[in-house]
Amino acid sequence: MQFEDLIDTQPLWLNEEGLSNEIVLSSRIRLARNLEGYRFPTRAREKELEDVSELVKDAVTKSPYFANGLSFKTKHLSQLDIEFVRERHLLSTKKRIVDCVVGKGEIVSVLINEEDHIRIQCLASGLNIKAVYPVIFKIDEILSSNLTYAFRNDFGYLTSCPTNVGTGMRVSCLLHLPGLVLTKEINKLLDDVMSRGFSVRGLYGEGSEIEGNFFQLSNQITLGIDEEEIATKTEKEIRNVIDLERETRDKLMREAGERVEDKIWRSYGILKNARMLSQEEFVNLSSAVRLGIGIGLIDNTYLKLLNYLLLYTAPAHLQKMKGKIMDADTRDIERANYVREVLKRT
Amino acid sequence: MQFEDLIDTQPLWLNEEGLSNEIVLSSRIRLARNLEGYRFPTRAREKELEDVSELVKDAVTKSPYFANGLSFKTKHLSQLDIEFVRERHLLSTKKRIVDCVVGKGEIVSVLINEEDHIRIQCLASGLNIKAVYPVIFKIDEILSSNLTYAFRNDFGYLTSCPTNVGTGMRVSCLLHLPGLVLTKEINKLLDDVMSRGFSVRGLYGEGSEIEGNFFQLSNQITLGIDEEEIATKTEKEIRNVIDLERETRDKLMREAGERVEDKIWRSYGILKNARMLSQEEFVNLSSAVRLGIGIGLIDNTYLKLLNYLLLYTAPAHLQKMKGKIMDADTRDIERANYVREVLKRT
Repeated sequence: MQFEDLIDTQPLWLNEEGLSNEIVLSSRIRLARNLEGYRFPTRAREKELEDVSELVKDAVTKSPYFANGLSFKTKHLSQLDIEFVRERHLLSTKKRIVDCVVGKGEIVSVLINEEDHIRIQCLASGLNIKAVYPVIFKIDEILSSNLTYAFRNDFGYLTSCPTNVGTGMRVSCLLHLPGLVLTKEINKLLDDVMSRGFSVRGLYGEGSEIEGNFFQLSNQITLGIDEEEIATKTEKEIRNVIDLERETRDKLMREAGERVEDKIWRSYGILKNARMLSQEEFVNLSSAVRLGIGIGLIDNTYLKLLNYLLLYTAPAHLQKMKGKIMDADTRDIERANYVREVLKRT
Repeated sequence: MQFEDLIDTQPLWLNEEGLSNEIVLSSRIRLARNLEGYRFPTRAREKELEDVSELVKDAVTKSPYFANGLSFKTKHLSQLDIEFVRERHLLSTKKRIVDCVVGKGEIVSVLINEEDHIRIQCLASGLNIKAVYPVIFKIDEILSSNLTYAFRNDFGYLTSCPTNVGTGMRVSCLLHLPGLVLTKEINKLLDDVMSRGFSVRGLYGEGSEIEGNFFQLSNQITLGIDEEEIATKTEKEIRNVIDLERETRDKLMREAGERVEDKIWRSYGILKNARMLSQEEFVNLSSAVRLGIGIGLIDNTYLKLLNYLLLYTAPAHLQKMKGKIMDADTRDIERANYVREVLKRT
């Protein structure tokens, strides 16, 4: 697979067949690992980083999950391509020079020399932590048998940032919570969630804004607790949020059904007809339509299209598809055209 | 014809076949007349008004334009029905106790004992003053040969309000001017129009707000000028406004085409999908769609439906159709339902 083929292949974790997919967009686990005897990427010299990269890539190729995959270095990418891989959640920062190895379908990937020497990531559609868990630890097993991890019996895995020390594991789900937002119950919920040791971020990870009622919920604690317990506790917390969101949607429809239906159908009408759409507006309108699908107002076949569009209407994706750099106004026009074209497929 | 049949028959002047119908909704002439020897309605006793009413109705029935028509007294109408006939432009005030005689299709009507003893009104679709003119003067001729008008050789026809003295004639067109509004050129134009002796009002006549970019343009001067000259000058002024609106639309599409198209298609999408619509929002959204039809973006078959909806989504029409009194929220829901139902007919 070549880098330029990425744009033409939809990540498999974006298909809509996961559990509780009316609320959970995707599940993700990532492990942070570092090599014994090498400085963390923030402090290492270039030669050291190159050595790390060679070692890790050699180890990664031993895993069948990366057969027919793709490998690229961000320093060889244009600004547009860096933005493009960020939009695909393959990269979470613009800053570092990193290597990325991606398995077919983008279910698994390994980032080399980002914040840590190694970041292993595995994704699945919907609420599916149980499916992700064995995959990521199989990859970890292959890597650990070919590399010497920085590990202390008292601490566990050592990581560049102390918040990851221990298991180096973060379990997260991308949740769509319009009911809790519309009823203004979200802030109390987020406070509760955080007080129980979980953290909440926006659609594009750390530092990103809460857009379109999307929230990434993940474990905060990585130390003094084993991997299975992190996965179990995080999934329990997420199931609790899902239940609350479902109850809130029912309550909302009982108490303000007409207003909610009106908001949903207007959003649908605008998506199907607008000639200019900013990304922010697309995300917000599609959030309302997503709620409409969730409560059974709008046909379920739209969910797959909205998931696809959530990625492919992002600025770099739009520009890669059109094969040219476009200013914001032109992107808004092309975005609206593309949304209309895709929504006609139902 | 019975009063209760009105709701089921669309006024003929609302069909979309008039000239310049992409800008001119309707043309109207009204004549104000009073009977010699009777005090103006504002000052007359009840018995006097009843005598006037009998005399005028007798005279009106002699005109073939009122065959198979309808006659009603507002004092026998409910508040809802009074609002209903106001929405149909048969009555312009809520205040007086008046008689109304309406010809078939609501092209012609005579109001008795409103501001003047007699107000004759004739309407046509689009720019069609030339068609209205002979009809209204044929009715005036029949009435004048059966009644004694209050008339002075020096003044002309005497009227209750001095602004109507002379010809008692007002020629008006209902114009849709979104181009001039969007480009903010409307205020200068209105100033010019008024400085040339014309007046401008909103959709529902005197005292009503400018809604949905609709303007009623009419002659201000009725004295010292003959009827044909009033008609000719007013039509010339209106043709001038139409030309300016067309030029402005062309300019707007050249300079901000995407934004205007976006506004039009969003409005279309909302009308087709909303579940709650206030009257004000309907008028404004349909104004944008009307512009879309005018510039050829949206199929012309919608024009007839929008004209129909402009009347039938008004509060009293909605309630008459549903056969019950409804609060504002319920009307907004029924209005949205009705708009979707009617727009599906294309």
